[in-house]
Amino acid sequence: MTQLSDLYGRPLSLLTDLYQLTMASAYQASGMAEREAVFHLFFRKEPFGGSYAIAGGLSHLIDFLRDLRFDDDAIAFLATLEGNDSKPLFSEDFLEYLRGVELALDIDAVEEGRVVFAHEPLVRVRGPLLQCQIVETALLTIVNFQTLIATKASRVCRAARGEPVLEFGLRRAQGIDGALSASRAAYLGGCAATSNVLASQLYGIPVRGTHAHSWVMAFGDELEAFRAYAASQPNNCVFLVDTFDTIEGVHNAIEVALELRESGHELVGVRLDSGDLADLSIRTRRLLDAAGFKDAAIVASNDLDDTTIRELKTAGAKISVWGVGTKLVTAFDQPALGGVYKLGALRSEDGEWDHRVKLSDDLIKVSNPGVQQVRRYYDRDAALLDVIYLDGADLSAGCRTAEGVPLAGDNDCEDLLVPIFRGGSQTYECPSLVVSRELARSDLARFPDSLLDGEVFADSPERYRVSLHEDLDSLKRRLVDEHRRS
Amino acid sequence: MTQLSDLYGRPLSLLTDLYQLTMASAYQASGMAEREAVFHLFFRKEPFGGSYAIAGGLSHLIDFLRDLRFDDDAIAFLATLEGNDSKPLFSEDFLEYLRGVELALDIDAVEEGRVVFAHEPLVRVRGPLLQCQIVETALLTIVNFQTLIATKASRVCRAARGEPVLEFGLRRAQGIDGALSASRAAYLGGCAATSNVLASQLYGIPVRGTHAHSWVMAFGDELEAFRAYAASQPNNCVFLVDTFDTIEGVHNAIEVALELRESGHELVGVRLDSGDLADLSIRTRRLLDAAGFKDAAIVASNDLDDTTIRELKTAGAKISVWGVGTKLVTAFDQPALGGVYKLGALRSEDGEWDHRVKLSDDLIKVSNPGVQQVRRYYDRDAALLDVIYLDGADLSAGCRTAEGVPLAGDNDCEDLLVPIFRGGSQTYECPSLVVSRELARSDLARFPDSLLDGEVFADSPERYRVSLHEDLDSLKRRLVDEHRRS
Repeated sequence: MTQLSDLYGRPLSLLTDLYQLTMASAYQASGMAEREAVFHLFFRKEPFGGSYAIAGGLSHLIDFLRDLRFDDDAIAFLATLEGNDSKPLFSEDFLEYLRGVELALDIDAVEEGRVVFAHEPLVRVRGPLLQCQIVETALLTIVNFQTLIATKASRVCRAARGEPVLEFGLRRAQGIDGALSASRAAYLGGCAATSNVLASQLYGIPVRGTHAHSWVMAFGDELEAFRAYAASQPNNCVFLVDTFDTIEGVHNAIEVALELRESGHELVGVRLDSGDLADLSIRTRRLLDAAGFKDAAIVASNDLDDTTIRELKTAGAKISVWGVGTKLVTAFDQPALGGVYKLGALRSEDGEWDHRVKLSDDLIKVSNPGVQQVRRYYDRDAALLDVIYLDGADLSAGCRTAEGVPLAGDNDCEDLLVPIFRGGSQTYECPSLVVSRELARSDLARFPDSLLDGEVFADSPERYRVSLHEDLDSLKRRLVDEHRRS
Repeated sequence: MTQLSDLYGRPLSLLTDLYQLTMASAYQASGMAEREAVFHLFFRKEPFGGSYAIAGGLSHLIDFLRDLRFDDDAIAFLATLEGNDSKPLFSEDFLEYLRGVELALDIDAVEEGRVVFAHEPLVRVRGPLLQCQIVETALLTIVNFQTLIATKASRVCRAARGEPVLEFGLRRAQGIDGALSASRAAYLGGCAATSNVLASQLYGIPVRGTHAHSWVMAFGDELEAFRAYAASQPNNCVFLVDTFDTIEGVHNAIEVALELRESGHELVGVRLDSGDLADLSIRTRRLLDAAGFKDAAIVASNDLDDTTIRELKTAGAKISVWGVGTKLVTAFDQPALGGVYKLGALRSEDGEWDHRVKLSDDLIKVSNPGVQQVRRYYDRDAALLDVIYLDGADLSAGCRTAEGVPLAGDNDCEDLLVPIFRGGSQTYECPSLVVSRELARSDLARFPDSLLDGEVFADSPERYRVSLHEDLDSLKRRLVDEHRRS
């Protein structure tokens, strides 16, 4: 809907680590600024001890790249920075170069809402080395956080087994955009609505809310407070019943609900925010049903997350709507996704791709070389395996994964990275958020519950197979060997 | 420096939970919108298992309040919202009222950088009930997060015992403002610089950065990479030495540093980003010293926080600059501060204050009533105790805390809440961020190390005494008793 550039009243080109610009300056001075390079953004481990993630952030990433330019204000600021000799950090020559930079990158990315796994490139950035470098930090910030929250939301919604989850996290979020982009990603991952009015306006997310304890405290008398609320908002009554005593609160809610019904309105529900939510919800359900309010929702809130929702369900809670705040929007149990951005190849002076790996003592941390693509294979509607391969490689029947699994050419398959920018021009039209949310829902349905919820049942969860194509695997091993010999 | 309204290209009045606006609508319909109320923002437990917090966020809070208005765009959006009967949620009458709202609040707050404790009001909001309510969510978002990060930064800087801490968290932060306001709060809490260029521009924070692994990977040959970097940025050389082999990297850094010195420049330092940082830093220090680079810094990074810094110091690490990212800007071990905002009193129809408490089975969770202020008592430069009292109460010699401690009138003391807005007009001039940072430093010096670092040495840390004044305590007990009887 609204673009990042509209939300932020300024260009965001300086939203970067300084070292991207000092490296850019040194690339320019070394004559390497325009050398073609390819970088991939990926994470090494699925978050929350789980087995999958939901890709998020592409829409904001597109906005950021489309607006990328170093205007007079940015250049003037960079000109003030000094090195350890109190002389300028950046030459005038470089700053003029930077002022003239126009995005010329080819960007491919996994669409928002797709189910993704460790080591798969989520974004591939190809083009002038200097440009690949200066976009790194913002791409990581945007994709890391929105993927993290979309994944957390997906896990919370799976725990709620289809019952609506409302995102209530604004007051505890990490800053203003920590809230806004969390609301967006939470909706992408399956939440039904947010409490955040600005997120609703910006991103078209349904918004929900009724009243707080302070409403009841301002009146002192709960029955009077419910009546006054109902008089003003008869079509939006979810009474918060635990300000004094929850069960007494339910009786008061029922009394006002009966009055509401006489005036032609229906109680939407009640909200429980403290105490033993399983027990209280069971007793509340009985009282509501007995009074003729079988359709009234029981909303619960109070530090909920996927784990507590599962526990409440096991305890037989009669909760029909889940309000989840802090632990969703901050991804409390793992508040960062460790996405990284690694050089895959650099065009050599003779025009050939020179493939690169980032070494590590730990083979799993050695980055994959080359210009990569990911292909997902299906058996009818069930995902079978993903294969990371060198873009352009022959994938006809007969080739194999690194583990020797033959890739049947006649299976359904699709490539996950799709073109987003070509030569700096946007070639991809972002679907609406609601369409991306539906993609997340339908994509998850292609994977078994035992995989998606596996970590709940076992110490070492079931893993989906993500393989390297045999050619990519050979290339990687050869590069590692060459490095170790030299 | 730059205001929130400049950073965000739009008014932020809709940055709120919907229920603040539905309650506002109901207050207006009930004729209670203009009733004078007072609310306090406070937290119930110091974060990170520690014994103190550093107040943050006031500057952004002022910006938010100063810009608060519901413009045509906001009103038009609210007019589209519907209740469960598909009829408008808000009456035209209410929306007109909202359009006309001009801030009329009296706001008092603890200044940024002050050391604060659980249950102390950080912000006091007094004025028309409706206005007190509609600012709640944004105040919580801003103060919760910036207080959390300033506190985390303070803890990290204390672990580093005066050695510079650089904040490197942008790529893993929770959204764009999750990064920007984290950089600001981290500097407030004691960090020496950030890597975030935009945060540097917006908030005047020193910015640092040199190069990444990708710089070395792009060259393939480390010595060549260091030389090329030095040629472009001779006054900003901190070589990252662990791309291939750390000790080999240090030798290469020294070789280029000697060449630099011949051309009249000094190596700033080297950076270690993997492996056994204690052992590698000791070996690196020896090599640098032996080669004549006793002043060259050894920067370390790699998932550091206060705990790992302390461990590295215990292990004898020769690290002189600490790069801290993810675990600082996301407050990884506790990514939210549970600040709340509670009604203290409401003016009754006869003009008297009607004091309110929010009940809880847990006495510690019962909110304090009244219009509160906090007084801190000193013995020369050492803070002795804080007393929460009813603003305007007699605090002359002879009165006591709830525990019976006499309050000596001849001790130095000061009130922590200072006037920020009066009748909606700003009366407080925000000091520059660097002045607030100095306040944090000097304020911490008034508390003993055994208190500030207590949790490191004991399961149950030393606590600073925060007492209720005997009159406030009596009022609170009376209100609780009245509620329980009714």
